[in-house]
Amino acid sequence: MITETEVRKALEGVMDPELHKSLIELGMIRSVRIRNNQVDITLALTTMGCPLKEQIVGDVTSAVSALEGVKGVDIELTEMTDEEKRRIGIGAPQEDRGAAEDFNDIQRVIAVMSGKGGVGKSLVSGLLAVALQRAGHRVGILDADITGPSIPKMFFPDGARLGMSPLGPTPPESKTGIKVMSINLLLEQEDIAVIWRGPLISGAIKQFWGDMYWGTLDYLIVDLPPGTSDASLTVMQSLPMSGIVLVSSPQGLAGMVVRKAARMAQQMQTPIMGLIENMSYFECPDSGKRYDVFGPSHAEQTARQIGVPFLGRLPIDPEIAKLCDAGRVEDYAAKAFMPIAKELAARAPEAQRSMF
Amino acid sequence: MITETEVRKALEGVMDPELHKSLIELGMIRSVRIRNNQVDITLALTTMGCPLKEQIVGDVTSAVSALEGVKGVDIELTEMTDEEKRRIGIGAPQEDRGAAEDFNDIQRVIAVMSGKGGVGKSLVSGLLAVALQRAGHRVGILDADITGPSIPKMFFPDGARLGMSPLGPTPPESKTGIKVMSINLLLEQEDIAVIWRGPLISGAIKQFWGDMYWGTLDYLIVDLPPGTSDASLTVMQSLPMSGIVLVSSPQGLAGMVVRKAARMAQQMQTPIMGLIENMSYFECPDSGKRYDVFGPSHAEQTARQIGVPFLGRLPIDPEIAKLCDAGRVEDYAAKAFMPIAKELAARAPEAQRSMF
Repeated sequence: MITETEVRKALEGVMDPELHKSLIELGMIRSVRIRNNQVDITLALTTMGCPLKEQIVGDVTSAVSALEGVKGVDIELTEMTDEEKRRIGIGAPQEDRGAAEDFNDIQRVIAVMSGKGGVGKSLVSGLLAVALQRAGHRVGILDADITGPSIPKMFFPDGARLGMSPLGPTPPESKTGIKVMSINLLLEQEDIAVIWRGPLISGAIKQFWGDMYWGTLDYLIVDLPPGTSDASLTVMQSLPMSGIVLVSSPQGLAGMVVRKAARMAQQMQTPIMGLIENMSYFECPDSGKRYDVFGPSHAEQTARQIGVPFLGRLPIDPEIAKLCDAGRVEDYAAKAFMPIAKELAARAPEAQRSMF
Repeated sequence: MITETEVRKALEGVMDPELHKSLIELGMIRSVRIRNNQVDITLALTTMGCPLKEQIVGDVTSAVSALEGVKGVDIELTEMTDEEKRRIGIGAPQEDRGAAEDFNDIQRVIAVMSGKGGVGKSLVSGLLAVALQRAGHRVGILDADITGPSIPKMFFPDGARLGMSPLGPTPPESKTGIKVMSINLLLEQEDIAVIWRGPLISGAIKQFWGDMYWGTLDYLIVDLPPGTSDASLTVMQSLPMSGIVLVSSPQGLAGMVVRKAARMAQQMQTPIMGLIENMSYFECPDSGKRYDVFGPSHAEQTARQIGVPFLGRLPIDPEIAKLCDAGRVEDYAAKAFMPIAKELAARAPEAQRSMF
């Protein structure tokens, strides 16, 4: 007969691959129940979105299965309470909360992600913010691209500076009232290089979220940088995400990298609201003929592969490049974006239904 | 009268911001000379490209200036020897060298960088490799974009796997003999997400460089990811760089981010060989008319601002998108790239003169 003590002893050898301590020591083994040599374990993860979940479950299963007489192992996953997390020194201990976090009232956080660079994440972030603002919502943009921030240039033709309030620094407002925070608002010159390794990048994003006084927002749009490394991880782990909008471009190459981003979101259990294709085609202003300048579109196929709604296409429009460079994205008529915004609203999860 | 002991004592309180130890303990204070209460200090940095150089110099100046009677502080910078670096456990201690590093003979390392994503770094890396290969050189590509690798898809229509040799794993060769290493050659499926924080990214790049058996190469082209964070830092700090080729696109936005990349290279004392503009215009196949689909070009202006040669323009060419997606970049005639390659050769520093 197996005993709980034997099982717990075996689990002392199983380490959390990120925290480098045994699951027992971390208090992650909530309960062990044994019936007829079948072992049922409740395992509390630091977060359900833990990317190492499968590895941990595999390690626990192997360790317990190796005990003589064990017939089967069943693992139920749950999440640690904030208190439990604080006790082992992770998560968001009270002292770690941003200085302004308790004063901010941010209803929904939507991240715009691609994995790939230069497909128009910032453009989609900007157009989405403008569309929401026009629909009467209070909107902010958090530019999480610390080494290549594009948002301020799109909204502030003459630059902008942080404001100050008793509750913390405040993001400047665009001419239509969209609140914007970006590393470039802190630099003396816009082209100063921010040569930071990951931990500093993550720290800056957390400060933008928690130390700034955003006030009340219906939507905070987070413009993610390319890649599935520090910035994306920090946003998905530390911010209360409502969902992700994926942006792709027609190249097959882009599709492959966007699928990586989608897999990350799925592993982190962040819902994907849909996929937008940018730079789909160029409409010749002289003949009206459409050219697939980046090759034929693969976006609908990519959306199907990922299993998310396809939200629509945005053309290459020299007008938008000009307006973005001039800090006038809010003047863009965004004809092509409205159907996408409506599609997003129609297909979005319940919580987002009231978007437009 | 100030004494050297007093100065050294004061410097015990000045910490290296990255190594978290005092400059004295790290042996970074080479010499202290005092004449008429003027203090001259020789400070040995771990690397002259140290991005925290100015902060360290500032801290030393403040600490010494605060001593009573000091009239002035003058700091001369120099670099630690490899031996000194090994002693404090940084740099490239013999044991830290890649397993295959001593067997590789790589003449020149050229990184393709932009700061911004999606401007065509991978395309330029690929075309540059193909042009060098056609000119009779032995060429490899190290894909340093760990979370969004584009290179393998351009060269291997049917995928590829690492080879094995007694000296280490070997990069697969393309059909024309270009050696390629990329994280995607290690993944079971190309769209698996690599959700890694910075240290793992840096570790992978160092392994690609030092643990792979590349053999003899005239040129290794390094395709950098967007941004000025871990991957770019590691490549510039750990690889013996010959130079950097910058890639931009017409948007003003791109120019700003490219200037950040240039500043990083300058701070790291890595020579910039020139700037290429990609996606400059679209030539309508029906009328032959050129359209500035991403707005008017700013690349020459950007190159002037940075103070580097402008190497030329690449158009948007649907043909190249198609060939890249089909793994056939080597079949591209690259008409538009040859003048750029020649320009690069003509303007490159002495060491690169023999390129074409």
